[in-house]
Amino acid sequence: MSATLITNIGELTTNVGGEGDACGTIRDAAVLARNGLIAWVGCARDAPSPGSDTKVVDAAGRAVLPGFVDAHTHLVFGGDRADEFEARMAGRPYTAGGIRRTVAATRAAGEEELRGRLAGFIRELRRQGTTTVEIKTGYGLTADDEERLARLAAEVTDEVTFLGAHVIPPEYADDRRGYLDLVCGPMLERCAPFSRWIDVFCEDGAFTEAEARRVLAAGVARGLAPRVHGNQLGEGPGVALAVGIGAESVDHCTFLSDADVALLAGSQTVATLLPGVEFSTRQPYPDARRLIDAGVTVALASDCNPGSSFTSSMPLMIALAVREMGMTVAEAVWAATAGGARALRRTDVGGIAPGMRADLVLLDAPSRIHLAYRPGVPIVAAVWEDGERAV
Amino acid sequence: MSATLITNIGELTTNVGGEGDACGTIRDAAVLARNGLIAWVGCARDAPSPGSDTKVVDAAGRAVLPGFVDAHTHLVFGGDRADEFEARMAGRPYTAGGIRRTVAATRAAGEEELRGRLAGFIRELRRQGTTTVEIKTGYGLTADDEERLARLAAEVTDEVTFLGAHVIPPEYADDRRGYLDLVCGPMLERCAPFSRWIDVFCEDGAFTEAEARRVLAAGVARGLAPRVHGNQLGEGPGVALAVGIGAESVDHCTFLSDADVALLAGSQTVATLLPGVEFSTRQPYPDARRLIDAGVTVALASDCNPGSSFTSSMPLMIALAVREMGMTVAEAVWAATAGGARALRRTDVGGIAPGMRADLVLLDAPSRIHLAYRPGVPIVAAVWEDGERAV
Repeated sequence: MSATLITNIGELTTNVGGEGDACGTIRDAAVLARNGLIAWVGCARDAPSPGSDTKVVDAAGRAVLPGFVDAHTHLVFGGDRADEFEARMAGRPYTAGGIRRTVAATRAAGEEELRGRLAGFIRELRRQGTTTVEIKTGYGLTADDEERLARLAAEVTDEVTFLGAHVIPPEYADDRRGYLDLVCGPMLERCAPFSRWIDVFCEDGAFTEAEARRVLAAGVARGLAPRVHGNQLGEGPGVALAVGIGAESVDHCTFLSDADVALLAGSQTVATLLPGVEFSTRQPYPDARRLIDAGVTVALASDCNPGSSFTSSMPLMIALAVREMGMTVAEAVWAATAGGARALRRTDVGGIAPGMRADLVLLDAPSRIHLAYRPGVPIVAAVWEDGERAV
Repeated sequence: MSATLITNIGELTTNVGGEGDACGTIRDAAVLARNGLIAWVGCARDAPSPGSDTKVVDAAGRAVLPGFVDAHTHLVFGGDRADEFEARMAGRPYTAGGIRRTVAATRAAGEEELRGRLAGFIRELRRQGTTTVEIKTGYGLTADDEERLARLAAEVTDEVTFLGAHVIPPEYADDRRGYLDLVCGPMLERCAPFSRWIDVFCEDGAFTEAEARRVLAAGVARGLAPRVHGNQLGEGPGVALAVGIGAESVDHCTFLSDADVALLAGSQTVATLLPGVEFSTRQPYPDARRLIDAGVTVALASDCNPGSSFTSSMPLMIALAVREMGMTVAEAVWAATAGGARALRRTDVGGIAPGMRADLVLLDAPSRIHLAYRPGVPIVAAVWEDGERAV
C-alpha cells in the first residue's frame, strides 16, 4: 500500500490531549499515513521526508481532524416517514408508534433494495466526514427479517447492534412475553453472528425495565456487549439500568434526574446525545453542560433513522450541541470523534496518533470552529479512510 | 444553445399555484428548458418528444424545485470572526460592533483575494441549490473600498446592494454627519453604477431613523431601489420606515410590534427572515406564523456574513423555519424561492413556468419535505442555471 503525507495543516485536532485541550491541537502540522494507519504526527517542519511512494497533500492552512465516529444509527430500512414528519411539525407529538410503519416497509423491501439504499447512506455519511458508523437492526422484528438487517449491516460496518427489542411488533401486540421469548431466543441466535452489541429501547411505549434487563442479559450471555436507548421521552430507568449492567453507552439522556447524572458520573458508561432527535421532534435538547460539568463522558451521534431524526450530518450535530446544549466547539468535536469511539469501546479510531487508523477529514476551513460557525454548509473537503482517499 | 428535458420527476414545485397549494405541485412531471429558459412544464406523459438537440435527464421519481433565491447576503469580505463566534457561544452577546473588524480585514485584503473568495462562496451556494443571490457592500466604508466591493459583487450577480450605511467606521466615530455626507454623496456616486439597491442598517448601534431616511432618499434619487435592515435586535423604526418609503423588503423582522405587523400586512413590502442569524447569535427566532397569518409576504434568506450568520445554506434556512418559526414545509420552500424573488422584485426567477429562467434544483429525495426532514444533509443532487448544468 502507498503512503500519504498531509502537510501545511493549519489546525490539527488529534484528541491526544492534556489539561485544557482535550482536542490535542497542533498548529502548522503534518500527518503521515502508511498501510492504512497513522505512521507519524507532528509539526510540519519536523515531518519525515516523503519517499517516492508517498503522495503529498498540501492542506493549504486548512483544518484536519479525525473522521467522525457516529455511534448510533438505524440505517437499514425501507420507505420513509416524510408525511409523519410534516404532520409532527404541524403539531402532532412524537411517539414510538411510528416505528411500526418502518417495520412494515422494511419487511416488504427486497434485499437488493435495502442493500442499495444502505450503500447510498454510507456514501452520504462519508461525504460528511463520518468514517466509523454503528448500525442497529430493529425494523425487521422477525428472526428472518432481523437476521437480514444484521447481515446487511455487517457488510458495511463492524459495529452492528442487535435491536430486536425496538418495539413490540403488531403481531405480538397481545403477547409481549412471547415476543421477548423470540428476541431472547431464536432471533438472538440468528443475529448474534453478525452483531457486536445488544440494545433495547427502554421507554414508555417500548420496553419496561424488567423486559430490558432480560434482553440485555440474554445478549450478554450470547457474547454481545450491552447498550441502552433510554431517557428519551421522559425520566425513566434507562440510565440506572445501563450503568448497573456496565453498558458502554446509554443513548438519548434527554430527561435525567440528579441521581441519573450522579450514576453516570461514577461510571464508565458514556452518555451518547442525539440532538438530531430533538431538532426533528421539537423536544427540549439534552443538557450536555450539566453532564460534562458532573464529569460524565459525552458522545454525539446522529441517530439517523426515518422517524425521529433523518439526518446523517455529524457537522450539524456539532452545531446543535454548541447552539443548544451548552457545549464548547472543542467539547462537541471531541464528542463526535473520540466520544463516539469511547461509546463503541474503540481505541483505533476517534483520534490521530501513530498506530491508529488513518481516518481523516480535511475541512474547507481554517478551524474546527467552522463546523459550528458555518451550520448546514458542506465544508468537508476531503476524507481518508484507512489511509485511502474516500471523498 | 441546447435543450434539456428533465422527466420522471416525482414531485415538481412550480410555485405557479392556486388556493391551498401555493407551491403549484405537479406529480409525475417533466420540464423542458431551451435557450436558458423554461419552454414547457407539465405531466411527464404529455411532454413534447425530445428533439435530437435535447438532452434527456431521468429524475427517477425525485423532486425538482426552482433554484433558491437568496435575497440577503454579505459575501464580499476579508477574514472571518470564528473567535468571536466561539466567544459568543460561550456567553458573550452579539452587537453590531464586530462589523468593524471585518471592515478592517476587508480593506486590508487584495482585490484578487476578495475575488477568489467570492468565487468560492458562489460555488458553495450553487452546490446547495442557490441560483440567484443578492450581495451587499458594507465592509469597505470608504468610497474606494465600497466601489471595489460593489464592482466585485457586480461581476457575479445583478443584485448588488449598496450598504455604505452598514455601521459608522472608526475614523468617523466622532463625525456621524460627515460619514452620512460621504455615504449620500461621493460614495453613492461611485457605487451606484454597480448597484440596483440601496440599504441601511436601521438599529441601535447602527443608524437612527432620521439617518436611515436620509440614506434611502439619496439612493432613490440616484435611481436605486430601497431595502432596509430593521428590527433585528429589538423593536424599532425599521419596518415603519421601510413600508413608508415603499421598500421592496425589510430584513430581519425578529422583534415586531402589532403595529409593525399591521403595516406590513397592508403593504407590498416583503418581510425577509434570516434564521441563520438567530441560530448563530442565539437570539429568539422571528415568528413567521404571526406574519403569514396576518397576510404578510415572507421570504427566507441566509444573511451569509462572517459575523452574525456564516451559513450559506438555504436548505438549513428551510429546516429552521419549519422547526423554529411555525412555517409549513410548503411555506418555507415558497419563501426560499418565490418569496426571495418577490423581495428582489424579480418575475423571472423563483418559479417554474414558460418564459422564466431555467434555474432548477434536483433533490436526492422524493419530496421537498426532505429539505426540512433531513437537516444538514447535502441532498442537492444537481443544479441547472439558465438551462445549463451547473452542479
